[in-house]
Amino acid sequence: MPSSAPPPEPVRVEPRLVERWLAELARHGAHGETGVWRPVYSPAWAAAQATIAGWFAESGLAVRRDAVGNVWGRLEGRTGGPAIATGSHVDSQLPGGRFDGALGVVGGLVALRTLAERYGPPRRPLEVVAFCEEEASRFPTANFWGSRAVIGRIDSEEPERTLGFDGAPIAAAMREVWLDPTRVAEARRDDLAAFIELHSEQGPILEQTGAPVGVVTGITGYRQWTVELTGTANHAGACPMDLRRDPMAGAAEIVAGVIDAAARRGRPAVTTVGRMVVAPNLRSVVPATVGFTVDARHPDPAALRSLLAAHEELIRGVAARRGLGLALRVDSDRIPCPCQPPLVAALRAAAAVVVSGGGVPELASGAVHDAQQMAAICPVAMLFVRSRGGLSHTPEEFSSLDDCVAGIETLATALRALAY
Amino acid sequence: MPSSAPPPEPVRVEPRLVERWLAELARHGAHGETGVWRPVYSPAWAAAQATIAGWFAESGLAVRRDAVGNVWGRLEGRTGGPAIATGSHVDSQLPGGRFDGALGVVGGLVALRTLAERYGPPRRPLEVVAFCEEEASRFPTANFWGSRAVIGRIDSEEPERTLGFDGAPIAAAMREVWLDPTRVAEARRDDLAAFIELHSEQGPILEQTGAPVGVVTGITGYRQWTVELTGTANHAGACPMDLRRDPMAGAAEIVAGVIDAAARRGRPAVTTVGRMVVAPNLRSVVPATVGFTVDARHPDPAALRSLLAAHEELIRGVAARRGLGLALRVDSDRIPCPCQPPLVAALRAAAAVVVSGGGVPELASGAVHDAQQMAAICPVAMLFVRSRGGLSHTPEEFSSLDDCVAGIETLATALRALAY
Repeated sequence: MPSSAPPPEPVRVEPRLVERWLAELARHGAHGETGVWRPVYSPAWAAAQATIAGWFAESGLAVRRDAVGNVWGRLEGRTGGPAIATGSHVDSQLPGGRFDGALGVVGGLVALRTLAERYGPPRRPLEVVAFCEEEASRFPTANFWGSRAVIGRIDSEEPERTLGFDGAPIAAAMREVWLDPTRVAEARRDDLAAFIELHSEQGPILEQTGAPVGVVTGITGYRQWTVELTGTANHAGACPMDLRRDPMAGAAEIVAGVIDAAARRGRPAVTTVGRMVVAPNLRSVVPATVGFTVDARHPDPAALRSLLAAHEELIRGVAARRGLGLALRVDSDRIPCPCQPPLVAALRAAAAVVVSGGGVPELASGAVHDAQQMAAICPVAMLFVRSRGGLSHTPEEFSSLDDCVAGIETLATALRALAY
Repeated sequence: MPSSAPPPEPVRVEPRLVERWLAELARHGAHGETGVWRPVYSPAWAAAQATIAGWFAESGLAVRRDAVGNVWGRLEGRTGGPAIATGSHVDSQLPGGRFDGALGVVGGLVALRTLAERYGPPRRPLEVVAFCEEEASRFPTANFWGSRAVIGRIDSEEPERTLGFDGAPIAAAMREVWLDPTRVAEARRDDLAAFIELHSEQGPILEQTGAPVGVVTGITGYRQWTVELTGTANHAGACPMDLRRDPMAGAAEIVAGVIDAAARRGRPAVTTVGRMVVAPNLRSVVPATVGFTVDARHPDPAALRSLLAAHEELIRGVAARRGLGLALRVDSDRIPCPCQPPLVAALRAAAAVVVSGGGVPELASGAVHDAQQMAAICPVAMLFVRSRGGLSHTPEEFSSLDDCVAGIETLATALRALAY
């Protein structure tokens, strides 16, 4: 969508439909007043996917359940060719909220249904997907199970090897919902032109800037380390400071340093130390070991590399200077995923006409998303809807109906520009 | 002992007696090859106290078990008057080593026995005590039970109110060894002229300076806080650094700051953060709360006050600047206990003639001791014996026989100067 194109006409959707479908979806696995408890392949999850398949069908889409249980709805294009897809996931944290994932599925459906009703069949095919799994809330190493199947990144042994928190393999859970785990490879797609994901922000930036919708410029990359510092346990009174090898002193210096380094770089760099374990963890004993995690993120590849290098240099430098033993382990590593500029431009242009008054912020996603996986097979982009208080992964998660509608209308307007 | 006095004659003791008694005492509650497990009022403890009482008697001392189970041995003085006492405790950490406490009891006994054999009855009475309890290893709030009884600091309800880790009161444990918990007040003494405690150093200073013995100039004072910082839990990726209220960032700044403050002040200031608890303690979540302890010590009252004030100012300042909730609780407070200069001078003069070659370091005790309690009723002093690797509160604790003998000879030489 070149910036010289005339501004698109905003595609308005029916707020009551959005409200009703979000509420009905939230009934599957309802947890308390506002939460959901919908692990992949559970009865609540299966009911949610079946309900969505029914909505797809009643909205005139061709429905298909793939080999891992992703549900696809397709609006055939007049000229054929690769499809432009949208959607998100339906599994939840335990408990999670009603918007994380669900908004992108309902929003994609409402967008396609509205476009078909109002403008007839598109030039290029449009699809909406309800991915089966994103949260890893039942199987800790299964995250992005749905989108990884679509990009062909689940190997043939993985279904039997991927164990749940209860010790049972995901293959067994698949068989319970009539999926054959030996056929996972059949979920692979190579006929998509683009993937655009609508999602709740899960952070406070849009609320802080007073905007209902934001256009995502890239999805963060990150590295997660476990740092273990080993010193010498000593009596808190009898050992002079200058003779100590105190891993707590080293840990404090490193933690303060990495957090400060990210803060000084400014948005969108973030570094978090969320976990610390001290041994023996007694008031009167200089610790023997202090272990902690460091999670550093940046959506720009070069900036991420620079942040990671600065952190590792600090960690090694402090340990060496203080004579502490250091075990530094990289637990996971994900490269940043830039959103494709033409797709970003289409979303920007759509948001500009949908959201009246006030600008549309562009922001990076600090959380990871299915779109990041989909980037392996097609260009991707994302659209965020404001989250109240930035809350996510909790029943308290909330986005107003007005904000959800603004997000869906932006999506629909952009899809029209891209596919009609 | 004015410094103009002629140097005393060194009182030599029999190393084999020291070796044998230390080894025999270590059999009561033996734990593994080199450890002891001797909680107060346990059968192992009772056997140890009975054995010591037997050694006191066979060494010609008048033996008395007091109302809390401290065992006293007395060498009557020719002129009467208040007694000069020495000794230490026989209970242990679980497990502890063979020297912590035991060395002061055996050493005091060997010193008095040697003085009596070699020089006859003293001018002033001499006593040696095996305190029943110092470590609080069975009853977490009972520490200094033996010496606190002697100074009259156990109130009448305390025996029933002081509960063990098993939930039973110390009163019940006392009855098991035929002590009447209603008579604790009878252990009080007001007829002591001085108390001198010989103890293993439990720190690395003497080893570092190459000295077998050190004279203690004061016993540390300290304050122990619990600091609880409260912020806002947030997604590690989606919340920008500038919008966080991260208690881990505040904790790291405070921990680094207090440790650095003590290090910059130099010996004998020490500050330790030994314990930290993070919630929810997850890698991908900015913590909601971080709680940690701060333990700051200094043997000089003015320097301690200054160190504590600097720490509290830093803690409050960081919490306020970062917008964190702060709960700052003082868990315990102990004022420093200077050793009495004439007693210190007597020990210094004795050490100078006992330890051939090399100086005798003077150092502060960063650990707390029975002597600190005894200071409430009489002047006190302490003598340290080198600990291998500075280790303590572990079966690895070790002081060589030569070093133990040097400490006991210094004690005996000083007691002779003071009491003969």
